[in-house]
Amino acid sequence: MYDKLRKRVLEANLLLQKYDLITFTWGNVSEIDREHGVIAIKPSGVEYDEMKVEDIVLCDLEGTIIEGELKPSSDLDTHLEFYRNFPNIGGVVHTHSKWATSWAQAGLDLEPLGTTHADYFYGSISCTRLMSKSEIAGSYELETGKVIIETFKERNINPDMVPGVLVHSHGPFTWGDDCFDAVHNAVVLEECAMTAFTSKQLNPDLDKMQGELLDKHYLRKHGKNAYYGQR
Amino acid sequence: MYDKLRKRVLEANLLLQKYDLITFTWGNVSEIDREHGVIAIKPSGVEYDEMKVEDIVLCDLEGTIIEGELKPSSDLDTHLEFYRNFPNIGGVVHTHSKWATSWAQAGLDLEPLGTTHADYFYGSISCTRLMSKSEIAGSYELETGKVIIETFKERNINPDMVPGVLVHSHGPFTWGDDCFDAVHNAVVLEECAMTAFTSKQLNPDLDKMQGELLDKHYLRKHGKNAYYGQR
Amino acid sequence: MYDKLRKRVLEANLLLQKYDLITFTWGNVSEIDREHGVIAIKPSGVEYDEMKVEDIVLCDLEGTIIEGELKPSSDLDTHLEFYRNFPNIGGVVHTHSKWATSWAQAGLDLEPLGTTHADYFYGSISCTRLMSKSEIAGSYELETGKVIIETFKERNINPDMVPGVLVHSHGPFTWGDDCFDAVHNAVVLEECAMTAFTSKQLNPDLDKMQGELLDKHYLRKHGKNAYYGQR
Amino acid sequence: MYDKLRKRVLEANLLLQKYDLITFTWGNVSEIDREHGVIAIKPSGVEYDEMKVEDIVLCDLEGTIIEGELKPSSDLDTHLEFYRNFPNIGGVVHTHSKWATSWAQAGLDLEPLGTTHADYFYGSISCTRLMSKSEIAGSYELETGKVIIETFKERNINPDMVPGVLVHSHGPFTWGDDCFDAVHNAVVLEECAMTAFTSKQLNPDLDKMQGELLDKHYLRKHGKNAYYGQR
Repeated sequence: MYDKLRKRVLEANLLLQKYDLITFTWGNVSEIDREHGVIAIKPSGVEYDEMKVEDIVLCDLEGTIIEGELKPSSDLDTHLEFYRNFPNIGGVVHTHSKWATSWAQAGLDLEPLGTTHADYFYGSISCTRLMSKSEIAGSYELETGKVIIETFKERNINPDMVPGVLVHSHGPFTWGDDCFDAVHNAVVLEECAMTAFTSKQLNPDLDKMQGELLDKHYLRKHGKNAYYGQR
Repeated sequence: MYDKLRKRVLEANLLLQKYDLITFTWGNVSEIDREHGVIAIKPSGVEYDEMKVEDIVLCDLEGTIIEGELKPSSDLDTHLEFYRNFPNIGGVVHTHSKWATSWAQAGLDLEPLGTTHADYFYGSISCTRLMSKSEIAGSYELETGKVIIETFKERNINPDMVPGVLVHSHGPFTWGDDCFDAVHNAVVLEECAMTAFTSKQLNPDLDKMQGELLDKHYLRKHGKNAYYGQR
Repeated sequence: MYDKLRKRVLEANLLLQKYDLITFTWGNVSEIDREHGVIAIKPSGVEYDEMKVEDIVLCDLEGTIIEGELKPSSDLDTHLEFYRNFPNIGGVVHTHSKWATSWAQAGLDLEPLGTTHADYFYGSISCTRLMSKSEIAGSYELETGKVIIETFKERNINPDMVPGVLVHSHGPFTWGDDCFDAVHNAVVLEECAMTAFTSKQLNPDLDKMQGELLDKHYLRKHGKNAYYGQR
Repeated sequence: MYDKLRKRVLEANLLLQKYDLITFTWGNVSEIDREHGVIAIKPSGVEYDEMKVEDIVLCDLEGTIIEGELKPSSDLDTHLEFYRNFPNIGGVVHTHSKWATSWAQAGLDLEPLGTTHADYFYGSISCTRLMSKSEIAGSYELETGKVIIETFKERNINPDMVPGVLVHSHGPFTWGDDCFDAVHNAVVLEECAMTAFTSKQLNPDLDKMQGELLDKHYLRKHGKNAYYGQR
């Protein structure tokens, strides 16, 4: 019944390799079937070259395994926190992609510096705060998710308009309408992280791009007045 | 009748992938048939892997569609402004290539630092000024073109001798005798942007290269006294 | 009798190419059969494309050749010093991989800045001290090994928990349970070296990551309470 | 009669592509047959994908064409100056490889920072002085060669022990026993240029490596006491 979902999630996981976003097994993709409340996610620590459709694990929104012989990704609880709190998203991606991870390790927000960023992310991509000792010692992956949700709430960011975050000293998460859209955003984030690094090195005092230009590009591609692409 | 033109434009668009200048659909190439005043351009938001000859859109110099089922690139109006104002050019390329985009985001001109630059661009590659709120809110793509033309006029730059520009907070445009020449210049610009970044990091006080050396290399490859290649 | 060992070592050497860790012949992998005290190591200066199973050299822990027509890697004495002093390791890798070598040339420890590092290395990856004139003039490769061992002893580092080192003005060594694990760690080290460079450029005052997060990630993957992967 | 020489030079030119040292036609390789005083060199501005054995041009030490329908590389006069002044070399390579070119554009010597450099280059790789207006306006390619030779004489550098140079605001030349050795050195130079950039960014006050270590590594691979490889 969920073979199609599993197959999509397998394919999306393999795209992480194609787009050079992962090394070894350091990444995971999930997708949710909102109607049935079923999530499909990559198994933990399985080589991408050996992963099969039946290895993809199915669970519900509380993390109870529905189907699957293997253990789900150790980051499952972070994914679930996204699905529980961001009601419009359909897919989540986590990677340790090099440039985005560099920003996360530096503990810095990735500010919008150009139209590539603006085409996909409507403002800065936040870097979360440091986690407390008890958060780390506790249900760490769940707490990671909670810190992300807190960041969006406290900064009043709409996750549908800024579909990505940098977890401090860790790496990026992105999301989207479905798992493929989430992978797409992971690619864009990596590209923005690379060019923002270079721009900032060239011009250390560089400020965010003009708000008007951010608006223009984001709204050119999103919302009811979008006119980019074949729509 | 314009099948050959369309085919060339399709091929040139695919070269952007080959030379690693684009991610997803973030780039577009056009070419003009000056005799008939017909421009062929990439459709908007179509995947490179799926693009076919018949998807290439034909229009006139005012942007009226002559043939094509799909919408043209959303950057069409910028391309047209080039063709209307730079009478000797035959092809235009726009990309978000990483290194050139980094300079554009930094808001800095790309100064000539070495003979690679001098072989193709006779002086600095300008970064345009910030656009005004009304320019952004208005016919944005057309205004983008106008700001570029303004830059060349105010700085008294011959577009035939400096076939590229960096649009502030956005990315590069290049042009040339035809669409393949424009792609060629896009590759060179990216390479110059990468090495200039590194040179400037190594030597922050670095000034432009000697004018005599710029002259020598540019004129070794261009104009009536050129002696590079098999001519 | 040691064909399987030789074959493993050949395969592991070829992985250095696959993971883009070497140029020409600048790298070597060895593995030890602890039961018989036999070490298999790459021959010196042989092209990777031409290397065959029978070219892999076998020797004992004192470096006496047991089998093999070719001379062993000139770094053999360094490898042996590892096997003699780190009793739990089964494989050793040396490369001149670009990013790790850059840190070694800079003479700087590679501090843990994020969870990628923490997943594999439980603390800073040390850069060794400069070698003395007599150490360099003497049994240089053996002395290189001795300086590494000294570094681990003086800094009280457990080599099983920090399976890598940067040799000053030279490059990285990594090790592991077997030769494939050692290659795996070489890949991780290179990735950490790249992202640490970028993070430090973005944030020059950046300090080590939180100790609690380092603990959490390292212990999530290692030791009796590990819960990453299918165990 | 010189088919073998031409074939070697063609192959060596193609290696520049394999090792990612060139873009388009920006590079050239030559080799000399010292016995007959015949030099084979790449033709000017010919695409690498289309180059054939018969396109390789043959000339003597004064540049007089002996055989070949095409014009030789415009850098021929620089190559000849090498062959006339460095009597032990058999091959010359010129590229605009990215990292080495970045150092040349920055106008900086590439100092030895690690054993990779020391294994091939016995000391700093010089960046030449700026050329005078009359040198640039005159026989430019010949004068480029003369400035290189001058650099080696004035700094008292043995070109057999430092087989490379950075031409100011231009790019690298390397040489070697034959054309393949010269290509090999071009690859090494590029790698040293990349890691030296990164090391210097990490540690701006970084000085040259220890002289003793430079000696050890260079002499481990070169001269009568060499013990690296299968000799």
